[in-house]
Amino acid sequence: MIEIERKFLVSSDAFKSCALRKNHIAQGYLNSNPERAVRVRIKGEKGFLTIKGKSNESGLSRYEWEKEISATEAQELLALCEKGVIEKTRYEIPLGHHLFEVDEFHGENEGLIIAEVELQSENEIFEKPIWLGKEVSHDERYYNSYLSQHPFTSW
Amino acid sequence: MIEIERKFLVSSDAFKSCALRKNHIAQGYLNSNPERAVRVRIKGEKGFLTIKGKSNESGLSRYEWEKEISATEAQELLALCEKGVIEKTRYEIPLGHHLFEVDEFHGENEGLIIAEVELQSENEIFEKPIWLGKEVSHDERYYNSYLSQHPFTSW
Repeated sequence: MIEIERKFLVSSDAFKSCALRKNHIAQGYLNSNPERAVRVRIKGEKGFLTIKGKSNESGLSRYEWEKEISATEAQELLALCEKGVIEKTRYEIPLGHHLFEVDEFHGENEGLIIAEVELQSENEIFEKPIWLGKEVSHDERYYNSYLSQHPFTSW
Repeated sequence: MIEIERKFLVSSDAFKSCALRKNHIAQGYLNSNPERAVRVRIKGEKGFLTIKGKSNESGLSRYEWEKEISATEAQELLALCEKGVIEKTRYEIPLGHHLFEVDEFHGENEGLIIAEVELQSENEIFEKPIWLGKEVSHDERYYNSYLSQHPFTSW
């Protein structure tokens, strides 16, 4: 399916008090090429394999295929991944009809916090929380696949 | 799981009369790197996503993870693959306690026929049919991932 998403930097810690839940995420790439990214993720107790295509011209829409797999399988596949496993804490924050996912990165990406909101259409209106900073939807440096190879602390 | 497999060239067409069934296969790679190959396959009416690791030192054993997916999903994922989709006809030939899978390649790999037999252990004995030619288990040029990027007719 096609996923439509907008991505923002986060300007303060205020989001943490609004979080409904949080999970630790570890993820690596079997291919970090953004035209055919293959991601292995362990989120809490669950595993996921995700494949993403190239973004469209607006930078907001992207083909995405995802299957849940066992955490054991995900661990085996993570061992095959390219160097540069990403570790982050994901906070889920409902706001109006939307869910913001805020990722606080750790390790070599420490200091980076990114918020994402999934939309039904590219023009859909959504409420902007006060902690939302600059939009970076069009900046490929904020792709997790890019960060896995060029971590934030090396910028 | 770990897959143990030996691979041979095929010296004659005689295998065709012994085949129990045959299927058309189209397959591409989301990553053709043999250390983390990600393969999308359509075999008859079915789709498969397969991930393979690096071969061990003997060249016979390799980590393999596979999930069946729908043919529609496989078609979508094939569209994201690297250039070089492989087309072949697979013949399944039971012999003693083993199953030989013989792949007759088409398109840019026309002229190449490879037989594979899956084993329980690296030293397992198996019956060799008369049409079996030279063993190529240790030759990475016969990996399908390699053939997708360097087709047989270009050798």
